[in-house]
Amino acid sequence: MADDPISFRVNVRIFHGEHPFLGKGRIQLLERIEQFGSIAQAAKSMEMSYRKAWGLIKEMNAIAREPLVEKQSGGKSGGGAIVTNAGKATIRKYQQLMQSLEAHLTKLTEDTHWI
Amino acid sequence: MADDPISFRVNVRIFHGEHPFLGKGRIQLLERIEQFGSIAQAAKSMEMSYRKAWGLIKEMNAIAREPLVEKQSGGKSGGGAIVTNAGKATIRKYQQLMQSLEAHLTKLTEDTHWI
Repeated sequence: MADDPISFRVNVRIFHGEHPFLGKGRIQLLERIEQFGSIAQAAKSMEMSYRKAWGLIKEMNAIAREPLVEKQSGGKSGGGAIVTNAGKATIRKYQQLMQSLEAHLTKLTEDTHWI
Repeated sequence: MADDPISFRVNVRIFHGEHPFLGKGRIQLLERIEQFGSIAQAAKSMEMSYRKAWGLIKEMNAIAREPLVEKQSGGKSGGGAIVTNAGKATIRKYQQLMQSLEAHLTKLTEDTHWI
């Protein structure tokens, strides 16, 4: 155990007033919806209930200027969902923010002894 | 609600292998123990059980080269606890890390529209 490496995990949560808007978990949910085209599958892949996932999406959509996720009905993929362009831009911005922050964190911690 | 400000909260969690070592909550616990000289009072002020607080301290002490918190017995303040010099240095390092990271985050986000 003494030889185990030290690692750092950073999270940024974005609030609108007191309301949670975005964080690592919510971004992952958006990414999975983009991947699967389905809220149900995205939720399942994160071991989250559909109800919980839909609640998070409603919270994000209520805060964002444009919806980040839209449900689609009818057609072959009836019941599916898409991440909108606004949603995709939000994912990208958050990913860039985290990348920059993690690079800064690496610089800050490489010469520090924590143990 | 539309006029509510956007705010950012960052957290850094430090792991030793898979074992959680430090994070915002644990650092706050150390700060409160330093403030109160008592694990029980520190825990109470954070609405945490003594059992939970002591469990966290044991985890931190097991990972750190030197204990971060030591229980004191006997004397007027029998049952008290102190944050060791190693613990104080750890609090300070974490605070400096967070300050630098938050300054970087502010620079990164000041020109970004999130909503």
